[in-house]
Amino acid sequence: MHSSVKVAVVGASGYSGEELVRQLIAHPHAELVALTSRQLVGQTMGSVFPRFAGMRYSELPFIASEVPAIVASGAEVVFLALPHGLAHEFAGPLLRAGLRVLDLSADFRIKDVAVYEEFYGEAHHEPALAARSIYGLAEIYRDSLRGADLVACAGCYPTSILLPLIPLLREELLEPDSIQVCSMSGVSGAGRTAKIDYLYAECNESVRAYGVPKHRHLAEIEQELSGAAGVPVFISFTPHLIPVTRGIHTTIYAKPRSGVDVQRFGEVLHRAYDGSPFVRLLEGAALPDTKHVTHSNFIDIAWRHDPRTGRVILLSAEDNLVKGAAGQAVQCLNILCGWNEASGLL
Amino acid sequence: MHSSVKVAVVGASGYSGEELVRQLIAHPHAELVALTSRQLVGQTMGSVFPRFAGMRYSELPFIASEVPAIVASGAEVVFLALPHGLAHEFAGPLLRAGLRVLDLSADFRIKDVAVYEEFYGEAHHEPALAARSIYGLAEIYRDSLRGADLVACAGCYPTSILLPLIPLLREELLEPDSIQVCSMSGVSGAGRTAKIDYLYAECNESVRAYGVPKHRHLAEIEQELSGAAGVPVFISFTPHLIPVTRGIHTTIYAKPRSGVDVQRFGEVLHRAYDGSPFVRLLEGAALPDTKHVTHSNFIDIAWRHDPRTGRVILLSAEDNLVKGAAGQAVQCLNILCGWNEASGLL
Amino acid sequence: MHSSVKVAVVGASGYSGEELVRQLIAHPHAELVALTSRQLVGQTMGSVFPRFAGMRYSELPFIASEVPAIVASGAEVVFLALPHGLAHEFAGPLLRAGLRVLDLSADFRIKDVAVYEEFYGEAHHEPALAARSIYGLAEIYRDSLRGADLVACAGCYPTSILLPLIPLLREELLEPDSIQVCSMSGVSGAGRTAKIDYLYAECNESVRAYGVPKHRHLAEIEQELSGAAGVPVFISFTPHLIPVTRGIHTTIYAKPRSGVDVQRFGEVLHRAYDGSPFVRLLEGAALPDTKHVTHSNFIDIAWRHDPRTGRVILLSAEDNLVKGAAGQAVQCLNILCGWNEASGLL
Amino acid sequence: MHSSVKVAVVGASGYSGEELVRQLIAHPHAELVALTSRQLVGQTMGSVFPRFAGMRYSELPFIASEVPAIVASGAEVVFLALPHGLAHEFAGPLLRAGLRVLDLSADFRIKDVAVYEEFYGEAHHEPALAARSIYGLAEIYRDSLRGADLVACAGCYPTSILLPLIPLLREELLEPDSIQVCSMSGVSGAGRTAKIDYLYAECNESVRAYGVPKHRHLAEIEQELSGAAGVPVFISFTPHLIPVTRGIHTTIYAKPRSGVDVQRFGEVLHRAYDGSPFVRLLEGAALPDTKHVTHSNFIDIAWRHDPRTGRVILLSAEDNLVKGAAGQAVQCLNILCGWNEASGLL
Repeated sequence: MHSSVKVAVVGASGYSGEELVRQLIAHPHAELVALTSRQLVGQTMGSVFPRFAGMRYSELPFIASEVPAIVASGAEVVFLALPHGLAHEFAGPLLRAGLRVLDLSADFRIKDVAVYEEFYGEAHHEPALAARSIYGLAEIYRDSLRGADLVACAGCYPTSILLPLIPLLREELLEPDSIQVCSMSGVSGAGRTAKIDYLYAECNESVRAYGVPKHRHLAEIEQELSGAAGVPVFISFTPHLIPVTRGIHTTIYAKPRSGVDVQRFGEVLHRAYDGSPFVRLLEGAALPDTKHVTHSNFIDIAWRHDPRTGRVILLSAEDNLVKGAAGQAVQCLNILCGWNEASGLL
Repeated sequence: MHSSVKVAVVGASGYSGEELVRQLIAHPHAELVALTSRQLVGQTMGSVFPRFAGMRYSELPFIASEVPAIVASGAEVVFLALPHGLAHEFAGPLLRAGLRVLDLSADFRIKDVAVYEEFYGEAHHEPALAARSIYGLAEIYRDSLRGADLVACAGCYPTSILLPLIPLLREELLEPDSIQVCSMSGVSGAGRTAKIDYLYAECNESVRAYGVPKHRHLAEIEQELSGAAGVPVFISFTPHLIPVTRGIHTTIYAKPRSGVDVQRFGEVLHRAYDGSPFVRLLEGAALPDTKHVTHSNFIDIAWRHDPRTGRVILLSAEDNLVKGAAGQAVQCLNILCGWNEASGLL
Repeated sequence: MHSSVKVAVVGASGYSGEELVRQLIAHPHAELVALTSRQLVGQTMGSVFPRFAGMRYSELPFIASEVPAIVASGAEVVFLALPHGLAHEFAGPLLRAGLRVLDLSADFRIKDVAVYEEFYGEAHHEPALAARSIYGLAEIYRDSLRGADLVACAGCYPTSILLPLIPLLREELLEPDSIQVCSMSGVSGAGRTAKIDYLYAECNESVRAYGVPKHRHLAEIEQELSGAAGVPVFISFTPHLIPVTRGIHTTIYAKPRSGVDVQRFGEVLHRAYDGSPFVRLLEGAALPDTKHVTHSNFIDIAWRHDPRTGRVILLSAEDNLVKGAAGQAVQCLNILCGWNEASGLL
Repeated sequence: MHSSVKVAVVGASGYSGEELVRQLIAHPHAELVALTSRQLVGQTMGSVFPRFAGMRYSELPFIASEVPAIVASGAEVVFLALPHGLAHEFAGPLLRAGLRVLDLSADFRIKDVAVYEEFYGEAHHEPALAARSIYGLAEIYRDSLRGADLVACAGCYPTSILLPLIPLLREELLEPDSIQVCSMSGVSGAGRTAKIDYLYAECNESVRAYGVPKHRHLAEIEQELSGAAGVPVFISFTPHLIPVTRGIHTTIYAKPRSGVDVQRFGEVLHRAYDGSPFVRLLEGAALPDTKHVTHSNFIDIAWRHDPRTGRVILLSAEDNLVKGAAGQAVQCLNILCGWNEASGLL
């Protein structure tokens, strides 16, 4: 356990990078020593993110997104907040230089690089790293994360889907081929990129599905569900873009296995998560609402049995930039460094 | 066929009532002769709806929501834009006075009043009227609507679910017990009623499911799906409230029956709707987006087959206040009166 | 007067172009014969604007933004919905080919090209055309618009400011140097252009001033106010970007001239606008709200005298894409062609 | 100085109350011992505010809004988050019982109860308390707040107007009768009250002025401006409701006094606020944007001189629930208790 660790954020100009900065400003043990960006070199953090002007680190200047500069900053741990495909370039050299890497992209999440290449349409240059990375979903891989040097932080949609389902699949409560998922995400999930599709006037007063029927996140979701179930799992998944800045809401339908007592769903979820500080299992009539989790690292989960159809309905809400990205990554950092899992996050 | 018909709107102070007024202002054959409200008696339409100030009918004063006053207005056709439970009180007396009734509430949609009472928790006082009403989903009941005197206009969620599914169930292309629906609605669907849950600050930056697992609209949806399939159909349905004023987006998963050629889905939908002016079947990569249908009577529908899971995905978008309420009602009026189905609606 | 006129829209891919198409679909006398765009050549209108799929003109293909192609389309009147600086290139050749031009950009609004060049930072290539164009603010220049061949349609902010002020300045009711304006505009005013500043996640839950203290529209506003007052007028004007798609709200403070009876404000405004179908002067306690004018060509205006400060407050609301752009242009077309000023617009 | 103080929040069910709870959860010195509400007695904080479920104090039950119960809770300091008119009832008895009171309502802000009664239309029952309360605008009354027992926390609009203006008026840089203010507020400012005007569907895609020309906050604004200027000051002030949940943006026009060097504005503002941790004076081209201050206690201020009109323009942005309410109150608590002014607030 380290009482203090120097960290860098690579590709810090986007929404996940900004949220990482917010988390690190408040962190009692991590010390931010470098922010990198191809385009913002020399600008101070506070001028790039006016929200943080006058706060800790606001005078820190952006440096170039280059490995030698990152190493020279003294960083011991590096967050990669880069688009998929780019994290490949950084992780290997940084690891060889002795730094630890928490990657927020999809690059090291998929163990089978053939699956990666099928879903992402690009060659994977670091299959050995993909094979040995730890999947950064703290509640599920807590033990493996301790002391890990390469963490592939879970994606935003996957987190909202995997946390409700994994305990139930592990306990063989669900028919593995019965899972159907409908998710809604805020527009920050599309990144701070100049595209007409994400203009205010295109997203306001609009709801639309996209990535139908084969969204990229399926690769990662099905890998983890299959691991939990012990058999290959294929699911239906439809993401929708809705006019909120932050938040993901997921609704899941699944069929209990024959003979399963529906009381067990709650018991199994409680057993899985009662020690996890960021999973809230809702009681009574409460249902998840993204407005209760935005700007926090919580994921709220509820479940219902529908006797009319025999199906179970699982619902979750999280902030896509916190529990779905930056908060998740800091939670992994906390575990990796042996700190309290919630350090800096509440 | 009548070249002109006098119409009244009962309970015109809500969002559906306002949208009916908008449609009637532009209608070439219908003449608005009365607007009623319990609370607005004496106020002019233009003062209640500043949007329509200075337009046709803006000087029309609201009258009391009482049958004699409605009859005295000379109205030949009456739209009931009342909460469910209240339409019961008006429909019988109006019909007996020789007027025709287009009801926008749920009161006459459910043929089996026991089902109505189960889902709505109230006694039904006019079972005979419920039994003989015509379900106001123009694309499906066009022939029965001609000359009808009591139309139970289809609900907003049901319209978005039934139009994609009915042709496929009629042709026996889907497993009836495989249907799972996820819908998202704008906040105007909750009505112009002072409730904290629907305040701006409660709905903005928020997404939440509600009515889980047994939303009232299931009664009507399953009645119509069962009729189309020829067997009882039970579905999973989860509505979500999202921060838009108008619009419903529906995503449906279903399993094709064994041996069904997936090419047939498109053919069957085209055969069902190619003559229907308000159903647009999207081609190519296009997917429904509520922003393309708001303020119009269109419903946009797309479908995909997912070879990974074997399921078909159906998606639709409509304006909950137009195709899901007032536009649907005017479309029924047009058919009922023998006018062009699209009169005043494009 | 022509019973029918062929029109083209040049640069039809933006929000003003889309709104022009919406107006022309409903227009009884104008026939849309060409839509142009540099990037959409060959695509049909309905595929570019899914909202209009299946409607009139939806099969019309976009053609190149080139003068010979426009002339060959048979168009008699051309709407230029281009960025400022580009309209210069088209207007002269089109006029020389005998077409009439309604320009929605700023290029021909400023009579003094030195002022244009000061505010827009570019050389003006057609000073003679600027000098003889008619300013397209129908309520003020109605007579001059009849038979005009080059109309410089008024800008969105200017319309919201000029209509309340011009009658009062003409009657010498206000101190010319006392005018201070605060406007708020929806994000569609920034155009359908891929810029990070106008992403949903940058505009939602945000309000910000911009163009302080010298917004480009001042050139046009002050030209017209000076004309009305008979003396040079300089005003303070601060535009703000707010999270709505459509709508401009303007609040104006001004000082009545010494000895002016404040009752005269209402009288003068009524005298100026009582024959104008799109100006609504609000009575009683009503104040303008953009939600009552969106998707319509109305501008709502209210005024108050504040005895505590002696100032008068004028407030207006309009849809920036309709009364502030496309609706205004069609209103000018109607006048220019001798049709009812409101044709196709209500 | 106390290392720890027990605090209660009276009327904690609204948005300001919720925000106070958020601040207190994170506060290192204040200990929350009681939450009161007329309607929520017995419910736990975490069930009333699902956002805070599982966090510090989430099991604290609401108690009745009654003085004996509050005193019995052991609270030493009480925040009153009540509607104006109600705080009157609580402050006197609590003070006499030896507690200190931070009132977030308008009840003790106005020194001259005749002015209070003019603007609020109600009799004032505690003129002596109004006379001796300290106005809770920390940057201006820091010294008087130390050890105060009754703080009348500044209102949301007033804070956004007073902080830019007071230093300039104190230095006699502005013509006192030249001030004209335009503010925009998010809908949370209207409170968590069930009123149709504040429904999502009434506020979304809407902008509207209200309280024209004599908004209640003028009483408090003019009292403080007059105090700073040393002469009576009357201003024009128009608030607007815009579709954001949180945030106030204010734009102010004023005339420099004859002969004033405009360079002095920046100098005076820096001298006034360089030691104030929550006032950020923006440099360069930056202008305030509410999205940079929401969920924080910062107020961002910028200023510009317009040589064309001779006026100065001052702009500010704050979160109406934080710097405009709960954060301001906690900042006052920190000063009152002798803690670091920013304790728990960054």
